[in-house]
Amino acid sequence: METIGRRRWAIPEGYIPSESAFSDRALLSHETACILNAGQRDANVAITIYFADREPVGPYRVRVGAARTLHLRFDDLTDPQPVPRDTDYASVFESDLPIIVQHTRLDSRRAELALLSTVAYAEG
Amino acid sequence: METIGRRRWAIPEGYIPSESAFSDRALLSHETACILNAGQRDANVAITIYFADREPVGPYRVRVGAARTLHLRFDDLTDPQPVPRDTDYASVFESDLPIIVQHTRLDSRRAELALLSTVAYAEG
Amino acid sequence: METIGRRRWAIPEGYIPSESAFSDRALLSHETACILNAGQRDANVAITIYFADREPVGPYRVRVGAARTLHLRFDDLTDPQPVPRDTDYASVFESDLPIIVQHTRLDSRRAELALLSTVAYAEG
Amino acid sequence: METIGRRRWAIPEGYIPSESAFSDRALLSHETACILNAGQRDANVAITIYFADREPVGPYRVRVGAARTLHLRFDDLTDPQPVPRDTDYASVFESDLPIIVQHTRLDSRRAELALLSTVAYAEG
Repeated sequence: METIGRRRWAIPEGYIPSESAFSDRALLSHETACILNAGQRDANVAITIYFADREPVGPYRVRVGAARTLHLRFDDLTDPQPVPRDTDYASVFESDLPIIVQHTRLDSRRAELALLSTVAYAEG
Repeated sequence: METIGRRRWAIPEGYIPSESAFSDRALLSHETACILNAGQRDANVAITIYFADREPVGPYRVRVGAARTLHLRFDDLTDPQPVPRDTDYASVFESDLPIIVQHTRLDSRRAELALLSTVAYAEG
Repeated sequence: METIGRRRWAIPEGYIPSESAFSDRALLSHETACILNAGQRDANVAITIYFADREPVGPYRVRVGAARTLHLRFDDLTDPQPVPRDTDYASVFESDLPIIVQHTRLDSRRAELALLSTVAYAEG
Repeated sequence: METIGRRRWAIPEGYIPSESAFSDRALLSHETACILNAGQRDANVAITIYFADREPVGPYRVRVGAARTLHLRFDDLTDPQPVPRDTDYASVFESDLPIIVQHTRLDSRRAELALLSTVAYAEG
């Protein structure tokens, strides 16, 4: 059976609030790209970050193991440089093997949580 | 008219918080795969759960009756083993007949509810 | 230019909480199917509601005017019968012309709002 | 490599609450169309707003620079006229180049935030 997924994904929404009502890592405001590689070989993924008024940054490189999921927090990306807080961004994922990408934000600027999620836009 | 739906679905995001501000089952933090079988025969669905750092678990097997919907809570899956709490996971659904899958999380770690939902990724 | 949209849509998630912290109609817990008809003729839409353990109900019939949007609240459906509260359901939309359907829930069981939304599953 | 995206997008859900618990612009209730242009030329986008019971308004014209993202707030649209508050609307985006569109609402009618988001419906 062919591996499920696509090779190119895009997430137009991106925004990491600098503010959080909590210090627990799980409850800090953050954005996640949940990546599933259901195939039998490791996938190499190159991520480019786009901004409103400056040149794109990247590629950020991550590897998602065969038959593994990686819930990648954008605030964990550091190379080539951290993703700025309180700044509009967008992202494109290019993988050498089929993957599936879902976008999630946990927003804890206030004392209660807010969540959003969507399967990203796919091609290829 | 052909039955609406696809045979393969994927949900990269998965996370069941162990914490809840409530004990009422409806308000306990949970994740749901809402499955619709609009066809005229029962659908047999095999679910595989993927993790960040261990082998996948499954198949979990569920049957969705003809012209019925099943709102499957991941915390109700027990065979072959329960889905661990506070752990990143992802899931793939393979059905012998066309179905539609939508993913929802109700998060009640705090005293107010947070919700997310998205139609899952489809193929086949 | 061809009219944007599809003729068949499905929303597997459906659940109208009977409980609300508010009495204002806009803040009552509710589910909405936002329908856009960007075409030049009125669209006739037949909706079928599916349940976990009983026969489907429908069709509910709505008309969406040419170049109009209808944000249809499921708690406003009464003919052939109201959609039960606190009950899992799913829905299928069949239109004679291309439309686009987006699903939204506003949940006010607690004193703060929770929201979910997703573009529905499309075919045809 | 071909540019990622599509030329026509639709968002059936639209509603800007006039009420907000905050005066900070970032926390005011608002709806956003996050647009990504990952291509090498500027994209010209024409937006039409649809209503329940009056004629559509538009086009609103925005330009999204090459390799840039624009997180467009609907409450910033003024020409040909502002988008009314507390009113159901829907929107269609037509671009001369491939783009990706994601819809987000931040709702702060109550003292805590609620969020929704979905990748919009695409064609072309």
